Amino acid sequence: MKNIKVVAFDADDTLWVNEPYFNEAEKAFCVLLEDYLTHQSISQVLFKTQIDNLPLYGYGIKGFTLSMIESANIISKGTLNPTIYSKIVNLGKELLTKPVELIDDVENILEELQAKYKLVVATKGDLKDQHRKLHKSGLGSYFHHIEVMTDKEEIDYQKLLKRLDIHPSEFIMIGNSLRSDVLPVLELGGHAVHVPFHTTWLHEHVDHPIIHNNFKTIKKLSEVKNILL
Amino acid sequence: MKNIKVVAFDADDTLWVNEPYFNEAEKAFCVLLEDYLTHQSISQVLFKTQIDNLPLYGYGIKGFTLSMIESANIISKGTLNPTIYSKIVNLGKELLTKPVELIDDVENILEELQAKYKLVVATKGDLKDQHRKLHKSGLGSYFHHIEVMTDKEEIDYQKLLKRLDIHPSEFIMIGNSLRSDVLPVLELGGHAVHVPFHTTWLHEHVDHPIIHNNFKTIKKLSEVKNILL
Repeated sequence: MKNIKVVAFDADDTLWVNEPYFNEAEKAFCVLLEDYLTHQSISQVLFKTQIDNLPLYGYGIKGFTLSMIESANIISKGTLNPTIYSKIVNLGKELLTKPVELIDDVENILEELQAKYKLVVATKGDLKDQHRKLHKSGLGSYFHHIEVMTDKEEIDYQKLLKRLDIHPSEFIMIGNSLRSDVLPVLELGGHAVHVPFHTTWLHEHVDHPIIHNNFKTIKKLSEVKNILL
Repeated sequence: MKNIKVVAFDADDTLWVNEPYFNEAEKAFCVLLEDYLTHQSISQVLFKTQIDNLPLYGYGIKGFTLSMIESANIISKGTLNPTIYSKIVNLGKELLTKPVELIDDVENILEELQAKYKLVVATKGDLKDQHRKLHKSGLGSYFHHIEVMTDKEEIDYQKLLKRLDIHPSEFIMIGNSLRSDVLPVLELGGHAVHVPFHTTWLHEHVDHPIIHNNFKTIKKLSEVKNILL
């Protein structure tokens, strides 16, 4: 690890709680539509709609809200009580005003790492929303800046490394998603640390084990100190 | 102008056509709701909803689409034919797939400027959508990178300058909005060039004349060559 210059943290479900809020909103959405289908079937339509819309909407709450509306249209075949639409819009707005609940002992960890490395946030999602959360988190001063990425594939990390003006071997990514935070970074020759969160969006699942020299799994975020300090 | 190191271009209605597409979508939205109110009154509700939602949604097509849906709820008082919601979602999706029509002789201008300056795109809007448009425009290779900003106020330009690691006097911003591209940059001590576009969103209007040593207005984008070369 002696070459590492930049430590990048994923944000949602790595620095602060996110997926449980989406799960709550999805549950509330299922309740609104339960006259039409079972909760499980409603979730399936929503998931398919979200994935179909990713190339257009990208990640984040606004796209999620639009996908809920589109799913409601599909599920109800255009017969939904129109007052429900207003409730769906509000589910999205509530997500955009959720408190920012930090995970583990983030602030102390960042404070110790900051002395030795340039720290950045590397996240997907809505630009405005991620800036809001970073601001609300009170962690802003520990990070050189936040990179809101359109996606987290190899090409996106390549652009990030170019902007940071560093070699992949000087970069370590820490996050809860094997698919987004680990695999593409290892592929480029960077380092990655997986910190599993108790719930992960289906889209982020990886169904094979990862064994790699540049890769470690830890149980709690605070264990990154053992790796990096 | 001999100190200038970075030339930043606004994107929408500076490099490529944007506002006319929003105007078209708004017109189609008014037609969908015309059983309830006049087009003018519908536009007023939509504008107010958009402005009220800016702190939550920020700029861009996804927020615009959600504001159309919310406005439809307000205007129809929850009695809208549910099939209309699907049409509104599609108006938003159409905006996200519009062709990218370049303004003036952009490509030649960028080619000449590129030899002397670092060029960046500095724009508001949806992250994914602005990256899509830059890619589709074929202009990507002329720019060092694209900065999608949550807003274009002084504090946002301050962050941009910090990231670019330059003094305000080394920065020039070129764009069609006096409010977003000119005033905050002059305020910081940077340079700004206004290239009016034939239509501008009401929110971007400035109702006083600007007279400043670091400010110029030009009629066509190609005239930046007279200023910078």
